[in-house]
Amino acid sequence: MSERSYAILGTGALGGFYGAKLQKAGKDVHFLLKSDYEYVSQRGLVIESKDGDFTLPQVKAYHDVEKMPRCDVVVVALKTTQNHLLPQMLPPVVKDDGVVLVLQNGLAVEEEVAEIVSNVSIIGGLCFLCSNKVREGHIRHLDYGQITLGEYTSGYNSCGITDKMRQIASEFTSAGISMELTEDLLLARWKKLVWNIPYNGLSVILNARTDELMAYVHTRKLVEQLMYEVVAGAKSYGRIIPDSFIQTMLDYTVKMKPYRTSMKIDYDERRPLEVEAIFGKPLHKAQVAGVDLPQINCIYQQLKFLDQTLSQSQKPKSS
Amino acid sequence: MSERSYAILGTGALGGFYGAKLQKAGKDVHFLLKSDYEYVSQRGLVIESKDGDFTLPQVKAYHDVEKMPRCDVVVVALKTTQNHLLPQMLPPVVKDDGVVLVLQNGLAVEEEVAEIVSNVSIIGGLCFLCSNKVREGHIRHLDYGQITLGEYTSGYNSCGITDKMRQIASEFTSAGISMELTEDLLLARWKKLVWNIPYNGLSVILNARTDELMAYVHTRKLVEQLMYEVVAGAKSYGRIIPDSFIQTMLDYTVKMKPYRTSMKIDYDERRPLEVEAIFGKPLHKAQVAGVDLPQINCIYQQLKFLDQTLSQSQKPKSS
Repeated sequence: MSERSYAILGTGALGGFYGAKLQKAGKDVHFLLKSDYEYVSQRGLVIESKDGDFTLPQVKAYHDVEKMPRCDVVVVALKTTQNHLLPQMLPPVVKDDGVVLVLQNGLAVEEEVAEIVSNVSIIGGLCFLCSNKVREGHIRHLDYGQITLGEYTSGYNSCGITDKMRQIASEFTSAGISMELTEDLLLARWKKLVWNIPYNGLSVILNARTDELMAYVHTRKLVEQLMYEVVAGAKSYGRIIPDSFIQTMLDYTVKMKPYRTSMKIDYDERRPLEVEAIFGKPLHKAQVAGVDLPQINCIYQQLKFLDQTLSQSQKPKSS
Repeated sequence: MSERSYAILGTGALGGFYGAKLQKAGKDVHFLLKSDYEYVSQRGLVIESKDGDFTLPQVKAYHDVEKMPRCDVVVVALKTTQNHLLPQMLPPVVKDDGVVLVLQNGLAVEEEVAEIVSNVSIIGGLCFLCSNKVREGHIRHLDYGQITLGEYTSGYNSCGITDKMRQIASEFTSAGISMELTEDLLLARWKKLVWNIPYNGLSVILNARTDELMAYVHTRKLVEQLMYEVVAGAKSYGRIIPDSFIQTMLDYTVKMKPYRTSMKIDYDERRPLEVEAIFGKPLHKAQVAGVDLPQINCIYQQLKFLDQTLSQSQKPKSS
């Protein structure tokens, strides 16, 4: 295996978990932190995981990208609501001919990265991970953890399985992270939206868990209608998601343990919501391709209101 | 003027207000009550109104329609969520050749009445009234009060201004209630929905007042899009509402005092929501005419969820 170095931009529930797994497997990992910097640079990271707890008493922690070494693989593990920081963050930390691995939700996030850095490979990763940061330097991994990788090309043309993808997948796999490779990143991103759009949106707007949304006939129907609109959005870019996939997502969600979505957690903890990446971009992309998604538009505008009023209010609206 | 008798079915914020105004003007009014029956039968009604407070120390109060006399005009002033009671309530209380005056929100409420009673005239009334019941037998009239009347015919064919309408309007006007007559009840009902659908729906779903919905660009846009869907629904029945009407409603709402909609008040006070009359019926009617209203459908399904979870929960969700 290579001696490649990793930079983790955003050491939270997601970046902290994957970065810690990589370091535990012997990789050279550099963590960028904000609020937890002091704590983690002195005491390291604690990972409480269904796959086994572990502690990294010492990690290479940074508060400033300018102090980080240039790395072979830069993992973008920020929430998309922080992407306005990328033009300052990315250029100093990624090696020429290196890889930027974008582990973010939503659509078109790789395009933003491509506008910032050139001479790099950009790989998108879709994480199916259930984890929380429970306190400074302490991450609780509850379930799942798999990543689906696809390489980005301009215009999201499918580019097959590349060597760069295989190399990343091999290193993550050796760190105990389950990996899947896709030839078509855009298709994978739209497929993930089939779940993310209805459940993230409605869980925030209706103050509900996934099981509650599935238990009532009207929200179950609305979830399904929203899924069909996502499929129409994908189709506007020539990506075909079969109806059976929708049925699988519905069945899968009914069988899941009652689940508070990541956007609901953000809302409850009064963090900015990833409305643009998960709702705004798909809507805009479909519109450019001449397709209206009216119900997703309705959800989008409701979420924008909640996101803005949340950021301006003092007390939580829901508990 | 006539010596006609009035029955008020539902002596709440609306029926109590209009019934009290009629009795004060000398009409023979019979009030049906439920929870307030004991109190009102002993102490009468108190109306606190921007047009002048007054008290009716004695009113003809009933707890049971079977004990009421048959009346010339039966005013249906229940919330539409109580309309399952009409088949028992209406037949015993309305005179042959009498009038049923339906002062309810939503669409197609007259059709329901027409299925229950025949040999009567059915007149729909759209109330622009801002009033609350503040305690037993005590109604506070805050603003407005005008009623727009239109006579119902099978299929909602426009039937012009009828003598029955004029007679009711004359009696209400002499009681100090401002009246307008319309030749086309269905058009008037769709026009009222242009306001009621966006503001009632979004105020409940987003826990917001009208001024908050208008202050944020995304909800303002969504309000407007919902209004255009109502216009499309009206058009599916050949009723043309001009774009200028939408602009008027938006401007009017911006100028209004911050307003908690009637559905929001119902929600906050944990009463059933008039989802079917205001949202379900218009959706269904448009669908029958071959027109989809996707954003209204989204709002409808969200409200059904909130209405059902509200009825099953113990504590208020919002204050």
